[in-house]
Amino acid sequence: MNRIRKIFKSRSTVHTNEELSSAIKNITGLKPKDICLYETAFTHKSMGLKTDVGFPQSYERLEFLGDAILGAVIAEYIFNEVPSGDEGYLTKMRSKIVSREHLNELGQDFGLIKYAKTQVPTRNFGANIHGNLFEALVGAVYLDRGYVTCKKFICKKVVVPYVDIEKLEGKVISYKSLLIEWCQKHKKKFDYNTYEDSGADDVKHFSVKLTIDKKVISKARATSKKKAEEKASKRAYFALQDKF
Amino acid sequence: MNRIRKIFKSRSTVHTNEELSSAIKNITGLKPKDICLYETAFTHKSMGLKTDVGFPQSYERLEFLGDAILGAVIAEYIFNEVPSGDEGYLTKMRSKIVSREHLNELGQDFGLIKYAKTQVPTRNFGANIHGNLFEALVGAVYLDRGYVTCKKFICKKVVVPYVDIEKLEGKVISYKSLLIEWCQKHKKKFDYNTYEDSGADDVKHFSVKLTIDKKVISKARATSKKKAEEKASKRAYFALQDKF
Repeated sequence: MNRIRKIFKSRSTVHTNEELSSAIKNITGLKPKDICLYETAFTHKSMGLKTDVGFPQSYERLEFLGDAILGAVIAEYIFNEVPSGDEGYLTKMRSKIVSREHLNELGQDFGLIKYAKTQVPTRNFGANIHGNLFEALVGAVYLDRGYVTCKKFICKKVVVPYVDIEKLEGKVISYKSLLIEWCQKHKKKFDYNTYEDSGADDVKHFSVKLTIDKKVISKARATSKKKAEEKASKRAYFALQDKF
Repeated sequence: MNRIRKIFKSRSTVHTNEELSSAIKNITGLKPKDICLYETAFTHKSMGLKTDVGFPQSYERLEFLGDAILGAVIAEYIFNEVPSGDEGYLTKMRSKIVSREHLNELGQDFGLIKYAKTQVPTRNFGANIHGNLFEALVGAVYLDRGYVTCKKFICKKVVVPYVDIEKLEGKVISYKSLLIEWCQKHKKKFDYNTYEDSGADDVKHFSVKLTIDKKVISKARATSKKKAEEKASKRAYFALQDKF
């Protein structure tokens, strides 16, 4: 009997409601009102759960809703941000911001998979699980707190740190190359001190400390060396912006 | 000079701000706060207008925004309406509701083209102008009144009168055939009294009075006989629902 129980036990770490609530607060900046919504947002269909009235319960429906809400918020952001952009431009930019790759990066950076309840080992999921969980989280925040609060969360945690219109337009290909170019022009010595720093994470992580003329300008952490260096370069780029 | 002026005069009827404001109130049930938004929502790019800072001004940007807001509102509607529907079902149903054909029907029924400011004769536009103007109107309502009010407008004026999940699912092909079937089964005499009723509208309209056993059960008005009869049948279907 114990063996059967072991086989059917969820393969992911079990989190209490308090732990999930605290994690959601850290990620979104908002204390959950209805924790059940967030539980659903992290439940994979392999768990075979049902709602009170017997319908399958997983994050997929919330993912559908979150995708639509995210689309509306990002549409308004670009609409306001680029008053000169025509419909074609706005459509193209929105697709870039809510691209699968971008959403996966977001979900991964927020470490959402740690909270997934699943019977399938998380390493068996493809990269899209990260983006799907992120969209489901947006759906849960929307139902829990309404459009205006959800929009604020998306702007604060997604748009400001992740969205860069110039880069998306292709005007800036890589912040690292921009930064190196600037250092060479101004005869500055730069150093990317990059090292593995997985900590308690399941997924391998890298940290980087970027120094210019021996002064630490920025730090960053990501799931690949390239990503961590690009993130640190972007932070340095904005920190040094007036000098560029 | 007069001749030149005549050539360049807008080809559409000129409406004053008050007339436009009153029309918007009739269509949306909401009194505009910022009429400029609605002016833009009805301005075709052929007018060559510019914003204060010199960017092209037409309904196209609002159409982009309205499309996204409509998508979010309809997503939430289906999410709530069909708790058993999985992600695939929800996606399919949303596509049906916000299909080009459906949006064009909405724009046409609201008679939006009457308010379009354009240098191109409106008869030269394809059918999509109706849906595009409708989406632009949604964008204007959203910017003018916020998400919650815009959602109410969409639910009241679009979802309740136009969206029928069962019909979209293909379970109901035509309310007229359902109704006729019911009348034959119950040996009732029905009559569709359909007549042209364009009134002050530019577009031809038809009205229908549906009687069952000489009692008027429902009335409807639309831009084709078929549409008006289907609308009246749907109303009758819901009025007689417990008898079906």
